[in-house]
Amino acid sequence: MIGAIPLVVRSREELRTALTDASRPVGLVPTMGALHEGHASLIRRARAENATVVVSVFVNPTQFETPSDLTAYPRSLDPDVALCAAEAVDIVFAPAVDEVYPPGTGTSVHPGPIAEGLEGAARPGHFVGVATVVAILLGLVGPERAYFGEKDGQQLRVVARMAFDLGMPTAVVGCPTVRERDGLAMSSRNARLTAEDRAAAPVLRSALLAARAQWLTGERDGTALRDAMRTVLAAEPRATIDYVSVADDGDLREIGGRAAGAVLCSLAAWFGDVRLIDNETLADR
Amino acid sequence: MIGAIPLVVRSREELRTALTDASRPVGLVPTMGALHEGHASLIRRARAENATVVVSVFVNPTQFETPSDLTAYPRSLDPDVALCAAEAVDIVFAPAVDEVYPPGTGTSVHPGPIAEGLEGAARPGHFVGVATVVAILLGLVGPERAYFGEKDGQQLRVVARMAFDLGMPTAVVGCPTVRERDGLAMSSRNARLTAEDRAAAPVLRSALLAARAQWLTGERDGTALRDAMRTVLAAEPRATIDYVSVADDGDLREIGGRAAGAVLCSLAAWFGDVRLIDNETLADR
Repeated sequence: MIGAIPLVVRSREELRTALTDASRPVGLVPTMGALHEGHASLIRRARAENATVVVSVFVNPTQFETPSDLTAYPRSLDPDVALCAAEAVDIVFAPAVDEVYPPGTGTSVHPGPIAEGLEGAARPGHFVGVATVVAILLGLVGPERAYFGEKDGQQLRVVARMAFDLGMPTAVVGCPTVRERDGLAMSSRNARLTAEDRAAAPVLRSALLAARAQWLTGERDGTALRDAMRTVLAAEPRATIDYVSVADDGDLREIGGRAAGAVLCSLAAWFGDVRLIDNETLADR
Repeated sequence: MIGAIPLVVRSREELRTALTDASRPVGLVPTMGALHEGHASLIRRARAENATVVVSVFVNPTQFETPSDLTAYPRSLDPDVALCAAEAVDIVFAPAVDEVYPPGTGTSVHPGPIAEGLEGAARPGHFVGVATVVAILLGLVGPERAYFGEKDGQQLRVVARMAFDLGMPTAVVGCPTVRERDGLAMSSRNARLTAEDRAAAPVLRSALLAARAQWLTGERDGTALRDAMRTVLAAEPRATIDYVSVADDGDLREIGGRAAGAVLCSLAAWFGDVRLIDNETLADR
């Protein structure tokens, strides 16, 4: 059912109808819209691996901690549908809030310890919102595979843990971060940076590469790896550090002493009123 | 795939294999074992409506508030499998705890306001445990229909709300309470009653019928209906009231003044150290 123009559905009922005779397997790419090349790479992966590709476009209010961040989040369905058309998406699911959260809804999904640090600590309630909306989207679409970017590293792990814990028949697939030529991870928030902050923002990637360089020399101490990142970030006055982390790649517990296995290096920093994140997994070959 | 002996599977993997070529639709009857005629009625309904019937037998530790209640809960897989065989069940899923909750699991499902009163108030954490285990079982089995008894009236509504809220492709089907000849609702806990308490326990049903009699005369006041039940229960010295409730049948909010629509009358009482519940829906014809 690959066509030039995706079918845009707005309600649970329309989605169900559209999926009734869909060829299997189905791949889902959940997004909040404002699609960029990072999303396009997820969609291409889904297109290559599935007979039917569904892209959801839904700015989920429950994962924003502040009303201003929700209001500021960009919305642009027409260009999003155009990008989906160019990538041969079959179905775009762009529901209103009360189709995702019907009147009287009360259920929430709590992801547990893996969601407590990092973004979970910096953004209280964020991952309950993420886990709940992803559970709903996976329930409504019932895909064989769902695609998430590695750029939101904790989110990817929270969603994979949730889908496994709840026995869902969906494989959660992580896809490599897509970067601008200067190394900045693609994000819809990048458009809100001033020119000066945009020029400074690749320092996030530089800090992660400093940790990687240390790792490749054999450094396994959590504090030393964090210090390597902090030193790079401190040299950029436009960046205000929110957190710098070296955590176990599986359960995301912060590494106190020496890392025993793969680690997730991650960081968050403010540039003006824009908060950016990035991460890098370090593992023995 | 109707056979004389059900296939007993113990792990997620065995279940997945057993369901790979199962005829659709699939009906699931989730139980905690100790199967009685009430469960048999659920299984017969599932058998009549589905090509494949799965019965899960799992005493879920997370829905017990006290270790002693969990320890006291009866376990008897052999007779349970025999009952399933007699009812032509296809698959019995009897997992160990760590197949339902794998190592590192952290996800829980919170059902919201509908779970706050009644059993939810009397048993803190109970419905988080129920919602989580049912979400997992629905995820693992992926049935078209799942069957629950009306005897656990709030549980039925919590599960139906949860499945709908999370967009699950499963219809939650409520089935009428099966009663002993003297009106006592069947429950695996009945076996723990002393002879005297067993003789007294039908007072629960009598109290509900008193509310029904009032309703049929046109009484719609919540307090008057609760008083009708309390009067009957108070006349039985062996019963210690836990709660007596008249609530909106949809959202289970307690009725303060006059009921505008259908109500759920429900009650819980102790007989010695055994806690029993029962309920009755009252609606205009």
